[in-house]
Amino acid sequence: MELLRQIDLDELLRRALAEDVGQGDITTAATVDSAARGRARITVKEPAGIVFCGGFLLERVFALTSSEPAVRTIISEGERVEAGAVAAEIDGRLAGLLTGERVALNLLQLMSGVATATRRYVDAIAGTRARIVDTRKTHPGLRALEKYAVRIGGGFNHRFGLDSGVLIKENHIAAAGSVKNALERARRYAPHTFRVEIECETLAQVEEAIAHGATSILLDNMTPAEMRNARALAGDAILLEASGGITLDSIRAIAEAGVDLISVGALTHSVRAVDLSMRVEVV
Amino acid sequence: MELLRQIDLDELLRRALAEDVGQGDITTAATVDSAARGRARITVKEPAGIVFCGGFLLERVFALTSSEPAVRTIISEGERVEAGAVAAEIDGRLAGLLTGERVALNLLQLMSGVATATRRYVDAIAGTRARIVDTRKTHPGLRALEKYAVRIGGGFNHRFGLDSGVLIKENHIAAAGSVKNALERARRYAPHTFRVEIECETLAQVEEAIAHGATSILLDNMTPAEMRNARALAGDAILLEASGGITLDSIRAIAEAGVDLISVGALTHSVRAVDLSMRVEVV
Amino acid sequence: MELLRQIDLDELLRRALAEDVGQGDITTAATVDSAARGRARITVKEPAGIVFCGGFLLERVFALTSSEPAVRTIISEGERVEAGAVAAEIDGRLAGLLTGERVALNLLQLMSGVATATRRYVDAIAGTRARIVDTRKTHPGLRALEKYAVRIGGGFNHRFGLDSGVLIKENHIAAAGSVKNALERARRYAPHTFRVEIECETLAQVEEAIAHGATSILLDNMTPAEMRNARALAGDAILLEASGGITLDSIRAIAEAGVDLISVGALTHSVRAVDLSMRVEVV
Amino acid sequence: MELLRQIDLDELLRRALAEDVGQGDITTAATVDSAARGRARITVKEPAGIVFCGGFLLERVFALTSSEPAVRTIISEGERVEAGAVAAEIDGRLAGLLTGERVALNLLQLMSGVATATRRYVDAIAGTRARIVDTRKTHPGLRALEKYAVRIGGGFNHRFGLDSGVLIKENHIAAAGSVKNALERARRYAPHTFRVEIECETLAQVEEAIAHGATSILLDNMTPAEMRNARALAGDAILLEASGGITLDSIRAIAEAGVDLISVGALTHSVRAVDLSMRVEVV
Amino acid sequence: MELLRQIDLDELLRRALAEDVGQGDITTAATVDSAARGRARITVKEPAGIVFCGGFLLERVFALTSSEPAVRTIISEGERVEAGAVAAEIDGRLAGLLTGERVALNLLQLMSGVATATRRYVDAIAGTRARIVDTRKTHPGLRALEKYAVRIGGGFNHRFGLDSGVLIKENHIAAAGSVKNALERARRYAPHTFRVEIECETLAQVEEAIAHGATSILLDNMTPAEMRNARALAGDAILLEASGGITLDSIRAIAEAGVDLISVGALTHSVRAVDLSMRVEVV
Amino acid sequence: MELLRQIDLDELLRRALAEDVGQGDITTAATVDSAARGRARITVKEPAGIVFCGGFLLERVFALTSSEPAVRTIISEGERVEAGAVAAEIDGRLAGLLTGERVALNLLQLMSGVATATRRYVDAIAGTRARIVDTRKTHPGLRALEKYAVRIGGGFNHRFGLDSGVLIKENHIAAAGSVKNALERARRYAPHTFRVEIECETLAQVEEAIAHGATSILLDNMTPAEMRNARALAGDAILLEASGGITLDSIRAIAEAGVDLISVGALTHSVRAVDLSMRVEVV
Repeated sequence: MELLRQIDLDELLRRALAEDVGQGDITTAATVDSAARGRARITVKEPAGIVFCGGFLLERVFALTSSEPAVRTIISEGERVEAGAVAAEIDGRLAGLLTGERVALNLLQLMSGVATATRRYVDAIAGTRARIVDTRKTHPGLRALEKYAVRIGGGFNHRFGLDSGVLIKENHIAAAGSVKNALERARRYAPHTFRVEIECETLAQVEEAIAHGATSILLDNMTPAEMRNARALAGDAILLEASGGITLDSIRAIAEAGVDLISVGALTHSVRAVDLSMRVEVV
Repeated sequence: MELLRQIDLDELLRRALAEDVGQGDITTAATVDSAARGRARITVKEPAGIVFCGGFLLERVFALTSSEPAVRTIISEGERVEAGAVAAEIDGRLAGLLTGERVALNLLQLMSGVATATRRYVDAIAGTRARIVDTRKTHPGLRALEKYAVRIGGGFNHRFGLDSGVLIKENHIAAAGSVKNALERARRYAPHTFRVEIECETLAQVEEAIAHGATSILLDNMTPAEMRNARALAGDAILLEASGGITLDSIRAIAEAGVDLISVGALTHSVRAVDLSMRVEVV
Repeated sequence: MELLRQIDLDELLRRALAEDVGQGDITTAATVDSAARGRARITVKEPAGIVFCGGFLLERVFALTSSEPAVRTIISEGERVEAGAVAAEIDGRLAGLLTGERVALNLLQLMSGVATATRRYVDAIAGTRARIVDTRKTHPGLRALEKYAVRIGGGFNHRFGLDSGVLIKENHIAAAGSVKNALERARRYAPHTFRVEIECETLAQVEEAIAHGATSILLDNMTPAEMRNARALAGDAILLEASGGITLDSIRAIAEAGVDLISVGALTHSVRAVDLSMRVEVV
Repeated sequence: MELLRQIDLDELLRRALAEDVGQGDITTAATVDSAARGRARITVKEPAGIVFCGGFLLERVFALTSSEPAVRTIISEGERVEAGAVAAEIDGRLAGLLTGERVALNLLQLMSGVATATRRYVDAIAGTRARIVDTRKTHPGLRALEKYAVRIGGGFNHRFGLDSGVLIKENHIAAAGSVKNALERARRYAPHTFRVEIECETLAQVEEAIAHGATSILLDNMTPAEMRNARALAGDAILLEASGGITLDSIRAIAEAGVDLISVGALTHSVRAVDLSMRVEVV
Repeated sequence: MELLRQIDLDELLRRALAEDVGQGDITTAATVDSAARGRARITVKEPAGIVFCGGFLLERVFALTSSEPAVRTIISEGERVEAGAVAAEIDGRLAGLLTGERVALNLLQLMSGVATATRRYVDAIAGTRARIVDTRKTHPGLRALEKYAVRIGGGFNHRFGLDSGVLIKENHIAAAGSVKNALERARRYAPHTFRVEIECETLAQVEEAIAHGATSILLDNMTPAEMRNARALAGDAILLEASGGITLDSIRAIAEAGVDLISVGALTHSVRAVDLSMRVEVV
Repeated sequence: MELLRQIDLDELLRRALAEDVGQGDITTAATVDSAARGRARITVKEPAGIVFCGGFLLERVFALTSSEPAVRTIISEGERVEAGAVAAEIDGRLAGLLTGERVALNLLQLMSGVATATRRYVDAIAGTRARIVDTRKTHPGLRALEKYAVRIGGGFNHRFGLDSGVLIKENHIAAAGSVKNALERARRYAPHTFRVEIECETLAQVEEAIAHGATSILLDNMTPAEMRNARALAGDAILLEASGGITLDSIRAIAEAGVDLISVGALTHSVRAVDLSMRVEVV
């Protein structure tokens, strides 16, 4: 939760509320007494197995819409949920609970979706040396939350963005002229705090990369057999990352091919939202 | 495209680039000559049938990363794409093309995903009186783009947010004490430019809503048979909206039950990203 | 007060203080000990009859300039004020009270001015079916406060802005080609949560509008006699709004002509500020 | 126009448009073809004598809503307008002209109102040594525009805000203990680039202020006779400013009493908007 | 501290943290338990004589990174520090203390550097009539803090920026055509709350400036002898400011030449940072 | 220049101008005709040897204050300057040139100061394997510019901030319990794109760090002799960084001790501004 705590979450939530509430929640203003208090209950409307994520946001969202809400998170971050479980209860100004409902649920349904998908991939490779890592294929503006959800689901984070990792891709190799040139330029230019990772599409490229000092290699769309060969070439000190069109069906074989990291775009680019609902009672 | 043109798209794109690029694209800075020019080609890596959406963003994204890019959109907004089609070509400063790639693709893969899903629902109810409409279950910060994609896919937009529609839900009815009270309060309070829509879970509620002047009724989780009865009660002047757990399998029967609107959360909350790739060549 | 509570008031106040205080209140910094405490008293320097509005802002303005101010609002929101009445007392850090004075008074003198003018119009049509509504002729940046003051004065709000109502004006009719075209396009395009209102300058246009499904009609610069005829044509279910150059002298006759709404730009575009003063004593 | 040019006008206009347009101009999007071009004509619907102000804003407002508008300002900044005059014509994308109309007019009606009122006061004291100056009683967020309009009307600006002038008021004197203390503290503390002005309510205070080095004196609510005496005490080198409840009826006598400056809050706090209208034709 | 209190310090600190922390403090997140508490001690690693400045920032910086930090400032604002002194202790969430360390120290080392340098110049002219004043040669974005540090060091502030003082420089004189023209234009245009200061490079210019009503004169790069002559010409009522390449070696003679103000760019443009360190212990 | 190009420079410049110009440049507005054109010449008032840096900013600063300025940069980025050289000429609106002068010079005098200092350190270690690197001891808000100036001076950048490098310091080791724990936690937690660097104060710590997989080691305040021993322990594959109180006098011996990197805080925390002046002529 550490990294997440340091982004300006409130700014993100304020923008989300500005988008949804705009000039005001007309329906609630019309129908709910502004002084009334209420209790909201958030329920997971899914069969067992969902990984819940994002509960800590409830306090912050409702603090922006309801005066001094009291939040009780019943399901912990990363916990697997029983069918129909109540995830949290919030006491507060009734009108504010209703106004904040959709922003809160939109974020939790996304984050729980990411965590749940990640867990499935993590479980699929249990016992291997590989880690599941995310990609930069996230929803613009929501990357910190989605990468946090990957961690909650048991995965690991790849670089946050273009400034926190060196990853030489095919296009960079073409621009630099060769694997050798690209690697040398990167080692010269980039701060020494970074490893230098390079994408390879063939075993010949893997050999060239190793010859010129790559310390991490991304194996793009290789078969498990090719990956095994890459491992043999690379020895144990060089990190190998598998990437490209990996699914729950194919991932076990890939992990068993001996890679260190398997990056899966679908964790964040094609999320199935978890179905959450909020019911409020006047108290 | 009209509504979309009026939001501050550049602000959204700048924030998206700030998130992804941060302090700078280290890899590109290291490996690509800053003066080099290049041509990027965006390809749809999917079987036929995808609805392309978001092409107009390319010019704006790359204008922020590459000096005076020239964009040729080959696939039009809303066009169904052949397998492997090239969607667009962009000429510009090579480094800038690489730096903007991911933000551009992240947005287009999402918007094309929304448009494609919408089209499937729209096709499924062809010939009926019903319209497909979206919901507020969108990704925070991206609602304007997602609602635009729904229109490109042939759907219609429900209210943008809480300030552009009156929709009295179960929780509001409970807070106001009765359907009657809620409707009266809403009609008195809300600007006269709004219709007043109310959610009903039973036919008895539908009758009560009609009796107290509702002009739109959301039928929550009703069966097609119940919806037919609701139509009989409501006559033709009152708008009926079907909502709740609607899938591609169930939607035709619902549309044939005579509702005016069918709202589908999955259009935007559980989007499968369209697979796009960008390849760059030095020119 | 509900809608108002949801805009970012503090942001508006911070900008107002930035404008007035800039790099700092030099005079106060020079002449007032920074630790001194004081009591400020805000007085209405007007004859009886003023409607006071905006008192809730005092706490928020002075919270931004003075540490933990204690505000006692003596005159309630919307109360008619006796001559020379003390409206509020604020205890706090003396320097901060002086620094925040002008921003606080500038807002309250405007809002009380709007509320007072609105009350006069509301009183003038007492006993008729008509409501006083505001327009979009407000001071840029201050619309939410001005529309709130209209409600406090007993008026009602028209749409907040261009995104919260459909109002087809003469220019739109010309662009669409005809009343019929404009109405059909609006009904097809706009979310179903909106009524469709159209501006008519003649009774012939009123008839055409009714024939093509308008549910609200703005009668532009019509005489009371014409308005009566419009009502006869429209029956009771269609909302009629009178607009255009309406004054306190002419408004009663208009209200008695049977319209539902009378919109008055002068409520907000030509406000006479209420004269307020603040005196501070060291405590 | 110099000072004005340096504030971030575009930021102000963007906020004004965000307030008015919100998520989009639904009516225009529905009824106007997005590619259509149009010509807008802005007319002053008032008898002769209005001082026009703000024309330079048209280009900037419509640049934000319409692609490459061509603006012809027919009435110059500060020109007195004939009855019914056309002030400006704008060619551009028709939809954008309609969307920007209200923000443009709201600003011009305010600024022309301020300039017109200022001109009346300036004319009333023609031939005397006095200048009309404004106050800080402005609409929060719009001060730069209002102070600019005062200059266009022939008036002069008092300090912009609390950081651009030292003006010791009654409350500061009380806090500092005496006129002497307040003046000494101000001269010690404030940057030497400022004159030190002090408010006096009696001639005795004027004498004390002069004795302790005041170089400008604000005469608060004095009669013309008292002002004459103040001038006699002060000699010619000390600036005298008359302030407090000054009207068009009383101002000539005040100017003739020999003050240098007359500050008038009503120039900006109680503005009567100038009636402007915009008609658009399709071209 | 008054003026400083009124700028938006938190905004500045938030931006500083955003710059340094970015997406998160990876090292701390990895190595420090998020719940651990700690005590930080800030030490001045310099010989005696440093003037400490900026201690009040510690509470605000760490409030943004650590939950409810308790700050004990041991060295007061402006106090001269013994060698190796502990300046402050902060108890708080350990991870947050580490994350905020660099931003806090970067600001304090700068401000203490400014205050220390200022004190040296102030001491050097003790007993003369002259004041040390700063210039606009500050680090963009940090001017308010640097000008505050000048005051803490015993200096005075010149104008904050271009809007809080009239200072006619050589370039302005050239543009206006003559000293006379420049002075007349400035007196006519500028709000009466400002004195008018003019830069003179020769005694002839000084005479011309006096003849046309200058009330402050900046003596640019003059010798002490020339300054004495300028004083003789100006008499006592006109403020004289010495400026241009003044060092600790030359300043005493300048002060003794009878000027009122000596402006020193080096106070802020060439600051030697004070060496501060922070050590944390787990508690 | 690549990394720099991607931050929002204009935003930084706008804030810098807002700080310096505030509500407007009163002196220039008063004395310079707003239509007048001028030519500005920026001169380096220093003996030979200065490294010029920041010239590319001139176009952007003056674009914000003067309409369409034409900038001719005469001295290139990183070029050593002859005594009294003209660095650049700018043609533009005269008033805008004067208004932007100070912000432009403040940035260039800082950046040239950083580049000049860096060059001296780089020259001092010529012929060794070591690189000069910067630190995070920068002026808050200006880090990107300062780190760019370090590169222009021939140095290299360390991590930009806490999110772009793992550097385990003494405080982290204490919190984690041991070098071993800290290294293991960092390798597990941090994205694999980062190397793991650790600060060591003794050779014993160096040994422990190597034993547990550190790939970079910061040698804190070690003597050259200790550094030689550290190199012997580390072999050639582990990066060694010298840090702590390094001066121009001591640096050569350090570089010759065989470290890879020498980090110098004084490059950015104690910058002597380069003396630049701008003269303008009317054209």
